[in-house]
Amino acid sequence: MTTTQFLLALISIFVAAKLFGEIAERIGQPAVLGEMAGGIVIGVSGLHLLDPHSPIIHVLAEVGVLLLLFLIGLETDIRRLLAVGHVSVTVAVTGVLLPFAGGYAVGALLRFPVVVSVFLGAALTATSVGITARVLSDLGHLNDDESQVILGAAVIDDVLGLVLLSVVAAMAAGERLTAGSVAKTLAVACGFVVVAVLAGMALAPHFLRWIGRLRVAKALFFASITFAITLAWLADLAGSARIVGAFAAGLVLATTDRRREIEHETYDIAQFFIPIFFVSVGAAVDLAQLNPLTADGRRFLFIGLLLTAVAVAGKLAAGYAAFTRRPLRRFVIGVGMIPRGEVGLIFARLGAAAGLISGGMYSSVALVVMITTFIAPPVLRTQLSPRAPDEASPLCDVVTETMADRHEPG
Amino acid sequence: MTTTQFLLALISIFVAAKLFGEIAERIGQPAVLGEMAGGIVIGVSGLHLLDPHSPIIHVLAEVGVLLLLFLIGLETDIRRLLAVGHVSVTVAVTGVLLPFAGGYAVGALLRFPVVVSVFLGAALTATSVGITARVLSDLGHLNDDESQVILGAAVIDDVLGLVLLSVVAAMAAGERLTAGSVAKTLAVACGFVVVAVLAGMALAPHFLRWIGRLRVAKALFFASITFAITLAWLADLAGSARIVGAFAAGLVLATTDRRREIEHETYDIAQFFIPIFFVSVGAAVDLAQLNPLTADGRRFLFIGLLLTAVAVAGKLAAGYAAFTRRPLRRFVIGVGMIPRGEVGLIFARLGAAAGLISGGMYSSVALVVMITTFIAPPVLRTQLSPRAPDEASPLCDVVTETMADRHEPG
Repeated sequence: MTTTQFLLALISIFVAAKLFGEIAERIGQPAVLGEMAGGIVIGVSGLHLLDPHSPIIHVLAEVGVLLLLFLIGLETDIRRLLAVGHVSVTVAVTGVLLPFAGGYAVGALLRFPVVVSVFLGAALTATSVGITARVLSDLGHLNDDESQVILGAAVIDDVLGLVLLSVVAAMAAGERLTAGSVAKTLAVACGFVVVAVLAGMALAPHFLRWIGRLRVAKALFFASITFAITLAWLADLAGSARIVGAFAAGLVLATTDRRREIEHETYDIAQFFIPIFFVSVGAAVDLAQLNPLTADGRRFLFIGLLLTAVAVAGKLAAGYAAFTRRPLRRFVIGVGMIPRGEVGLIFARLGAAAGLISGGMYSSVALVVMITTFIAPPVLRTQLSPRAPDEASPLCDVVTETMADRHEPG
Repeated sequence: MTTTQFLLALISIFVAAKLFGEIAERIGQPAVLGEMAGGIVIGVSGLHLLDPHSPIIHVLAEVGVLLLLFLIGLETDIRRLLAVGHVSVTVAVTGVLLPFAGGYAVGALLRFPVVVSVFLGAALTATSVGITARVLSDLGHLNDDESQVILGAAVIDDVLGLVLLSVVAAMAAGERLTAGSVAKTLAVACGFVVVAVLAGMALAPHFLRWIGRLRVAKALFFASITFAITLAWLADLAGSARIVGAFAAGLVLATTDRRREIEHETYDIAQFFIPIFFVSVGAAVDLAQLNPLTADGRRFLFIGLLLTAVAVAGKLAAGYAAFTRRPLRRFVIGVGMIPRGEVGLIFARLGAAAGLISGGMYSSVALVVMITTFIAPPVLRTQLSPRAPDEASPLCDVVTETMADRHEPG
């Protein structure tokens, strides 16, 4: 990709994100839905202005999702997250087991080899926290109990999904698996979050005091972003998911007395990268592979719809696994867990690269990702009335700015 | 480059930029000098943490220089620029002709083929506006008459450098050149700026009024950035330099009544990308090729120093070509024109890719770029006393923030 092509891709992303985001808001839907729809229009199913598989776009989209998780961590009260922690665990585990069993059953029903059935099951397990968190944030409901359960469960899901991903990758490579290797992957991933958050909370105040003595411009801005990227990188090195590291970084800085300032400083840069992620998710969808006018298209459409039904049912049921005496809206939790987003696509890409699944099956999995990702925002919207975000949230800025934009004479 | 490698590169860039930027400020030098020195430490001459030739870093550095030029355009009063326009033209033309003649003479003296001598001459012509503009901005002197002359001349230099670049590229490819083809390249490049600025000034108020009616978050932020990137992309398509387009975008928006807001909105995102550019410039320097302990190293060191002398003398003389009755500090103008920065490196890379010059000669040209880039900031610093930037400048935010950082208890 030359610089010229990159600039055109960037222009397309921003125009599509804001144009379709505007349309979504005007018809009462969250802006993120418009951003994904805009991605479909400029992506491989539409104008081909954006190649979501280009390495540069891919990396920038990843930075977008890291900064999104960082901001979400920054807005999360770790005590409230821990208070609902056990609820999140049951939701996450149920939300992994049921879709896995369902995907495996669909594979077995269609007489696919065992490894392919395991793959299909695994591809249905992950939760794309980005999409739901963005919708909850857009609607001003990020601090509801249900949202905390969803966030916690989605982070646990990412850890479990990562374990499954390494299992599937090893199976695809023909390796033998042991219970020990699976347990080790799981322990490392969980251990990382605990160590990062505990060490971070102990060291962050000293680090911020040191930053406060620097003379160089924008020291807090760069320190915060570098901290988030460093924890993401360390999570990766430790064998965990990068977004887990970025989320942990936000959790840590949320406990410091400069939290508000950090939110304010990092908000604009996050806003630049986040739409790149959501538009890319839409741009990766290839509608042509699922054309119902062809026999192959009908077959893969059918498989895709079957997998989607299993995927949706599994996560909705997981919402009702939120065992607690608190009055929780379990349907909201279930809906919030539905989107597979980029995590499902990572599975699909791995499966295709390993030769486990054909291009058509790839599109079936992509259909699951697409439908699950697109249905959650409008359904959540019907369940949660938009609310003025509390003052803690940087969303507040957006609302104020947008209103200022509207009320200005010219 | 994997995402993991990219995150590590980004961490290195930000840590190096801010650590060495802090050191530079503490010893009374502009922060940009520290950023370049930090680049040498983490780049090909040092820790190898950053590969400045990786496509992703290259593209992000380019975004950095585009946003820098956009911000500079936004702070430029087009009437003042036009008022000193004729002075800029004589400075630019002299500053292209003298170094070109000097470089050609060095090549002829060393009995290189004509095409190599033309290449050496051409590589010495460009002015890297980014470095000087950043120093002038850091010192709060961006609105001085001298600064306006330098900015104007540097933009004209970019256009002339581009013409020379296409000439050299055609020569390297063995093409025959005609006066007509050279004149056409020149006319297109100049025409672009005039058309972009005139059309932009006529359309911008309507565009901003439309943006003001949008409900979507951060509309002005995305509209401004997209406008800058679009003009850069159009400049590229029209056969001109991208930074000319970004600068023109800033000039246009500076004439609107929302200039302050746009500066405020785009400042943070620019601050994220700009250090990537300056650290990359330093990281590309390979000191090993110029090791004076080897015969080859001594030879290329000698050629490099000879070319540097010619390059510096040519631009200093150009400063004295500022024919006007106004009391201008012509030495400041000359010094401001000295840095070759990335533009010189683009020439060097083209020459090496076309087989015109060896790896050693590449390092000689890189030495010119390095010395000219490093000497200008401290010399400018001795000529211009730091000044509190006027309130119009987003630099103001930095000063306020830095002071707030320092005065806070912890």
